[in-house]
Amino acid sequence: MVPHRVPRWPSWLFRASPGWAQTARALGAWVPQGRWPGSSRGAGAASPLARRGCSSMPSQPPKVMLTQERYPVRRLPFSTVSEQDLAAFERIVPGRVTTDPGELEAHNVDWLRTVRGCSKVLLRPRTSEEVSRVLRHCHERNLAVNPQGGNTGMVGGSVPVFDEIILSTALMNQVISFDDVSGTLVCQAGCVLEQLSRHVEERGFVMPLDLGAKGSCHIGGNVATNAGGLRFLRYGSLHGTVLGLEVVLADGTVLNCLTSLRKDNTGYDLKQLFIGSEGTLGVITAVSILCPPKPKAVSVAFLGCPSFAEVLRTFCTSKGMLGEILSAFEFMDAECMQLVGRHLHLARPVQESPFYVLIETSGSHAGHDAEKLGSFLEHALGSGLVTDGTLATDQRRVKMLWALRERITEALSLDGYVYKYDLSLPVERLYDLVTSLRARLGPRAKHVVGYGHLGDGNLHLNVTAEAFSEPLLAALEPQVYEWTAAQRGSVSAEHGVGFKKRDALGYSKPPTALRLMCQLKALLDPKGILNPYKTLPTRA
Amino acid sequence: MVPHRVPRWPSWLFRASPGWAQTARALGAWVPQGRWPGSSRGAGAASPLARRGCSSMPSQPPKVMLTQERYPVRRLPFSTVSEQDLAAFERIVPGRVTTDPGELEAHNVDWLRTVRGCSKVLLRPRTSEEVSRVLRHCHERNLAVNPQGGNTGMVGGSVPVFDEIILSTALMNQVISFDDVSGTLVCQAGCVLEQLSRHVEERGFVMPLDLGAKGSCHIGGNVATNAGGLRFLRYGSLHGTVLGLEVVLADGTVLNCLTSLRKDNTGYDLKQLFIGSEGTLGVITAVSILCPPKPKAVSVAFLGCPSFAEVLRTFCTSKGMLGEILSAFEFMDAECMQLVGRHLHLARPVQESPFYVLIETSGSHAGHDAEKLGSFLEHALGSGLVTDGTLATDQRRVKMLWALRERITEALSLDGYVYKYDLSLPVERLYDLVTSLRARLGPRAKHVVGYGHLGDGNLHLNVTAEAFSEPLLAALEPQVYEWTAAQRGSVSAEHGVGFKKRDALGYSKPPTALRLMCQLKALLDPKGILNPYKTLPTRA
Repeated sequence: MVPHRVPRWPSWLFRASPGWAQTARALGAWVPQGRWPGSSRGAGAASPLARRGCSSMPSQPPKVMLTQERYPVRRLPFSTVSEQDLAAFERIVPGRVTTDPGELEAHNVDWLRTVRGCSKVLLRPRTSEEVSRVLRHCHERNLAVNPQGGNTGMVGGSVPVFDEIILSTALMNQVISFDDVSGTLVCQAGCVLEQLSRHVEERGFVMPLDLGAKGSCHIGGNVATNAGGLRFLRYGSLHGTVLGLEVVLADGTVLNCLTSLRKDNTGYDLKQLFIGSEGTLGVITAVSILCPPKPKAVSVAFLGCPSFAEVLRTFCTSKGMLGEILSAFEFMDAECMQLVGRHLHLARPVQESPFYVLIETSGSHAGHDAEKLGSFLEHALGSGLVTDGTLATDQRRVKMLWALRERITEALSLDGYVYKYDLSLPVERLYDLVTSLRARLGPRAKHVVGYGHLGDGNLHLNVTAEAFSEPLLAALEPQVYEWTAAQRGSVSAEHGVGFKKRDALGYSKPPTALRLMCQLKALLDPKGILNPYKTLPTRA
Repeated sequence: MVPHRVPRWPSWLFRASPGWAQTARALGAWVPQGRWPGSSRGAGAASPLARRGCSSMPSQPPKVMLTQERYPVRRLPFSTVSEQDLAAFERIVPGRVTTDPGELEAHNVDWLRTVRGCSKVLLRPRTSEEVSRVLRHCHERNLAVNPQGGNTGMVGGSVPVFDEIILSTALMNQVISFDDVSGTLVCQAGCVLEQLSRHVEERGFVMPLDLGAKGSCHIGGNVATNAGGLRFLRYGSLHGTVLGLEVVLADGTVLNCLTSLRKDNTGYDLKQLFIGSEGTLGVITAVSILCPPKPKAVSVAFLGCPSFAEVLRTFCTSKGMLGEILSAFEFMDAECMQLVGRHLHLARPVQESPFYVLIETSGSHAGHDAEKLGSFLEHALGSGLVTDGTLATDQRRVKMLWALRERITEALSLDGYVYKYDLSLPVERLYDLVTSLRARLGPRAKHVVGYGHLGDGNLHLNVTAEAFSEPLLAALEPQVYEWTAAQRGSVSAEHGVGFKKRDALGYSKPPTALRLMCQLKALLDPKGILNPYKTLPTRA
């Protein structure tokens, strides 16, 4: 069961070497008292960034510009909230109507601090019945509503654009049931992903999704945005793992599709409509989701690659040699590593390389898994795909290595204003855009970086600058989208559309599809009160 | 890498023993010249049953009663096909308009020979453009259309009820592309599943679905009915594995969502609407689907269990011990085995038992897989979960064992008229209904059998009788549905709704959901011309 060792593969790979101890000390700087970044444990209630698990925010961040001032958007003719409305809400969710501007601030601004609404009221229902009564009232009164989960979205979809009523799922945080035989979890929409992970892991299962924002994001928000994340390669899309949903429609109707069945072909699979519809077709109030058995062994290899061509070859080789135990294949470029070092003081665990890959295996037999991974690593080093590497099998080190990848977003947000692109591309062309953009933008950008879920063909292209600037935006858009469309890629792989990507939809969807989206919106929310200014094209 | 042997586990389990040879000879009767049951190779063009791969039909089967005579259903006020319509079709699909009653017969009757329409015209387009022009004409003329794939459905969804025009995808059988890196197959809707399997297997991949009807069923029909099948446990639902669709809407509009991207969150995932909508919302003309890498080792264990409790315990144990390599867990009762023996002359490969399970493993490392499976089998026999078993690792024997399970449907159809129920149930209660029904029906039924995809909580409950009889139907329905609803199960796990299950929908879906289904139908097909009398409740 001990992996076969060959002289060419450094011996420190398979044991806790001095090099490892050094790395662990260096990494230790950012995991004090065993606190896991992104964890809700120890996270304050202050800013959205802090709630997302970031600890190094400046004490007085500059005020974020109002969305309506930064972007050309006009308020639609919804009613405004009156004293009578507030009294009605107080009857529906007594003691859970917030109008305090200070408290509302964190719910009006997205965690990236790029968009800001000016909602005057936040409601915190506890049950779907309360959500139903709130929406019935809003529908009758023509009041716009912004459903909000953990407010960890990347595209401005989770905060109001104007004065929409914020309907938070924060208090809808109860686990309803868990079936130990099938692994089916049924819970309210406001459950925090990390807490659900703990809940099911104690019972021998794992959540089928995992993402950097796990410490704050709500499962309802995950489903509403069809979150991808770090386990997508292994467990697939939420369209496959979500078994049932309870959704409250715009007029307050409760649509109960909360079944826990693995198979159900009784007519149209209605829940699918709401997965990825970003709260524009209905408010998800409960989720039934299939959890896979918890792997008995998890290992992470963090490797340096001499070029992107070797990253690709490493990927193909790992698919072949690791087979069914390959559970993640992530990559990041050298600039990403520099930024997590500079802003988060995370040490690089391997020699400096142009590219790094993180490979995770999860399996049911530690010995078999180690043998597969050992053979693969031996081959990868022996054939020059990889120039350096480190391996972790215990939970603490696995998490340390994952943090290098998971916290890139956070490091970027500390680097300045971030222009974010989340693209699906043919894997062979995945990095070309980063290279050409870096050359074209030159010193106008602080950093142009590429990282992401290579195994899913998903590139996160990020450009940082000191501050938001129209000319830089014009240098990026629509070129980034046009290039992506030319590769028949997607201009939003997993982040969704939200407020920011509405006008890019046409690069990935034909007019017929955009028209059908608008027809579905009109059918399910004829007054357009649910999360307005989001997800749908401004013109279709 | 050789499985550990213990004295209690019979030695023949791990080698080609005399017992095996005997079994193979016995099984050989039904696989002459290596022909695989269900294969389209060697299948004639005659009856739907023959096309499905059945070889032992009586030479002159009795005429099937017209659906409109057997069931209380009224023709809706669609137009009837005129000479002008036929001329128009001849212009759109020249030489591919069939009006010959003999040729139409096989397309008017379902393969189970339980429903029969009286369509007078069959159209065989080759391209989505032709489908579009046909539908545009039918929409303008208010002509009803029955989209038809391989006509292998179980619920009367694939044949006309009255005189609907049959729109066959049989000539839309071209593979468009296959990507060797990602495993993405793009093909026309009329490709036969087994041919696609061969196509991708030659390139090192497998189709994510497999089912008994593989030799005849079309991939478009599989997607339209959200087919489950034998690989569901491992690769999940088509809602997760289908990456893109091209669909022609009722008015002839071509909706091109035929992307090949693993991730695409650019707005509503429109393709999901059509997966499982049984041709009532649009005609699927092309499919993009993700194929997993072909496993390097596949093994099948066929085991006898002393009771259903042991079947369940065997299932839980296999999940724990086989982990990620478990790819199927099927079960069948003793009566199923008797029927495949009687009607198809298949020999029982293990001692007679009240229950049998078929466990398949698929993995990337034959040695590791054998070790896992060996440990599991040793444990299962040692702890009395299993009383007898046989193991196959070479392809021919694997197929022989699979045939025992796959051909149950065929054996049942040779036993008489079959009342078919396809239920999702909590796995612990999966067999209760079979037992109680068998007791209650007594000699009124020839056989009451239970089998299915235990790993997915999916029971196929079948009752056979000499002929269709209203009193027997009344003894079955609605009791079967009521019992299922009381367990919060599904009255159609994977077979869909079609014509036969429309009035059972309410047992699994609340009125709000049924209403939304009707609204979606009205939005996408306002004249209701696509596959009328199917899928939607008669009252909502």
